[in-house]
Amino acid sequence: MTDSWGPPDRSVLRPVAGGVTAARGFRAGGVAAGLKPSGRRDLALVVADAPAGCAVTTTTNQVKAAPCVVTEEHARNGRARAVVVNAGNANACTGDRGLADARSTAAAVGARLGVDPTDVLVLSTGIIGVPMPMDRLLAGIGPLVGDLAGDGGDRAAEAITTTDTTVKTVAYEVRDDHGTCTVGGMAKGAGMIEPAMATMLCVLTTDAPLAGAVLRPMLRQAVARSFNRISIDACGSTNDTVALLASGASEQPPGLAALQVAIEAVCADLALAIVRDGEGTTKVGYLTVRGAATEEDAAGLARAIAGSTLFRAALHGADPNWGRILAAMGASSITFEPARVSVTCGGVQVCRFGVATAFDRGQAAAAMGRADVEVVVDLGLGRAGTTFLTADLTPDYVAENAYYTT
Amino acid sequence: MTDSWGPPDRSVLRPVAGGVTAARGFRAGGVAAGLKPSGRRDLALVVADAPAGCAVTTTTNQVKAAPCVVTEEHARNGRARAVVVNAGNANACTGDRGLADARSTAAAVGARLGVDPTDVLVLSTGIIGVPMPMDRLLAGIGPLVGDLAGDGGDRAAEAITTTDTTVKTVAYEVRDDHGTCTVGGMAKGAGMIEPAMATMLCVLTTDAPLAGAVLRPMLRQAVARSFNRISIDACGSTNDTVALLASGASEQPPGLAALQVAIEAVCADLALAIVRDGEGTTKVGYLTVRGAATEEDAAGLARAIAGSTLFRAALHGADPNWGRILAAMGASSITFEPARVSVTCGGVQVCRFGVATAFDRGQAAAAMGRADVEVVVDLGLGRAGTTFLTADLTPDYVAENAYYTT
Repeated sequence: MTDSWGPPDRSVLRPVAGGVTAARGFRAGGVAAGLKPSGRRDLALVVADAPAGCAVTTTTNQVKAAPCVVTEEHARNGRARAVVVNAGNANACTGDRGLADARSTAAAVGARLGVDPTDVLVLSTGIIGVPMPMDRLLAGIGPLVGDLAGDGGDRAAEAITTTDTTVKTVAYEVRDDHGTCTVGGMAKGAGMIEPAMATMLCVLTTDAPLAGAVLRPMLRQAVARSFNRISIDACGSTNDTVALLASGASEQPPGLAALQVAIEAVCADLALAIVRDGEGTTKVGYLTVRGAATEEDAAGLARAIAGSTLFRAALHGADPNWGRILAAMGASSITFEPARVSVTCGGVQVCRFGVATAFDRGQAAAAMGRADVEVVVDLGLGRAGTTFLTADLTPDYVAENAYYTT
Repeated sequence: MTDSWGPPDRSVLRPVAGGVTAARGFRAGGVAAGLKPSGRRDLALVVADAPAGCAVTTTTNQVKAAPCVVTEEHARNGRARAVVVNAGNANACTGDRGLADARSTAAAVGARLGVDPTDVLVLSTGIIGVPMPMDRLLAGIGPLVGDLAGDGGDRAAEAITTTDTTVKTVAYEVRDDHGTCTVGGMAKGAGMIEPAMATMLCVLTTDAPLAGAVLRPMLRQAVARSFNRISIDACGSTNDTVALLASGASEQPPGLAALQVAIEAVCADLALAIVRDGEGTTKVGYLTVRGAATEEDAAGLARAIAGSTLFRAALHGADPNWGRILAAMGASSITFEPARVSVTCGGVQVCRFGVATAFDRGQAAAAMGRADVEVVVDLGLGRAGTTFLTADLTPDYVAENAYYTT
């Protein structure tokens, strides 16, 4: 089922443990600073042993959280030493105070580590519009630095979760004729997920020796094909951030092509994990739109389908109600010819050239009853296509989001 | 609460009974033709006693149902005699066969009434992608014509409902210094409601003596301010149609300004009724965006908020989680300045100049617990604004839409 998702050829990769500390040259940790009402771990830190190359992407939402603004500033020189991440409070819609709080956080981490504050990236997730409880956050930084370890990737990954029910870490060793290195990462997701640039908090590390200028286009491509191709609830966030750090600890790294595959695979796996663990989610829809004039058209139409509450409810109920797919595409601004469209749901062709096939509704419903459902829409217009992931819409999603702050 | 919705001055109007048969010169009826599995009324007819002026608006969805195509053709000359409406089958995504079926329906009704088939408008609603059971529909036309009566508006309105739980009719007598006439209408709604031109099936009648060329701009303005300003689930339909017929039976009609107020009031009342009866809906959100540079910007941002499943879930849970409002606006393509935005929820100011006020969360939650919740967003940019209606997102909506065709 995942053949349509992520890099098609993973032969250069081998999965390894450790998440953000799988690559050499990094330590990480996670502690409970009292930012989550539950008292669970909520403050994470990833530190490179020496100055690392870095690239970041942050949300394109006009309402950009303070940590996104500060992280963009600090990453502009393509170099970083540390990434501090908190859950429980997004530090968004917090005005000048929010910006000052994000800068204070970087300064406090920098002072503890003995590095320049501008080499510290700051990521936040949680409730919007509430000032960060800085006393608790700052008090947590000492214990957090004390928790740093070469095998701390899992504790860090646990600390960045909010409504997530799973800890999301991935790492691959990548090897080609030139050499080898490791790419790993951690992410959090669950709700307000339709990344328009990157998704709610992801930290990637590699021991490849690459500068920011090289990392940026590689990260941009990987994000475009992974985090920017998923939607849980079509709600774009204020805090989306992906940060990639390269320590250079690998002395004989592979070529850039193999490394790109590894970065894309880590991003694709984490993006899939986010959708699978979406708020209330019981199944993942793999929406492939092909036969399009351009990949952008295919992605836009897939996004329109993924954004349809009616389609997502039908996905939940295993209802092969393909008319909702065409209606959602038709309401978008991307033009196509309805009479050329064919649709398969779970391998069953339900629509051919814009009209119903003589499909067996029970067979189609059974095919859509599986945990992963592949929907393929062929526009019959061109040769471009892409795959987009979405989650089903469930009563649990509504229940979880009806009383989030009360 | 409804002060922000519909024409501000209704002093020329007086509500009357009868729906589409309130205006003189019209008969209507509704019968059960076996198109709904429930066996309830599913075929409606509205007939003008003499040739009537007419105007229609249909969906802008690229996947346009066959009856929309045929109705646009038949209304092009600005004249009509009858509107036949069926529920239970949308005749959408049905290809050439669907077009032929819609034309056959108009021909059969025309033959029974002794009028030209091109003077018959055809409206359909129900499941997409399934051929119309023409044998049953055609067999119902004889009894349907037999059911026509000068007080048949309520039976017709009942016959066009699908998942609606209420029958939606409105009529006003309008009077000014020049004279008087009546404007009435019926509509159906419930799901797949974010009209991009008109909404799922609405028939309006008046006894004013107006030609299609005069009616068209009046209808366009009324629809722009009513049906095009509501969303239940942000899902644009394939079948949206509003048809307005003017019999001319009023011998001393009011002026156009008063008539415009009446048409807008009927459209606004029906649009509100549709949102209030949205699938799973328990409350209506009145989203007013003001302080905008243009009315289009205000409407676009209101639509973005209404399209956010997170905002709609918070509306359901009476959660004053205003960060979701800013996040939804920020993810739209309409630019604004977050630091100038102020928000009130249920009369409680929760955000001022982009950051939280020191509001009482319990008081705000109580204000949002009412059946109608007014949310006012002031952009602080200009003097334009508009109000948009949305429904809360509930577990019942998901349950209702998960198994629609199975």
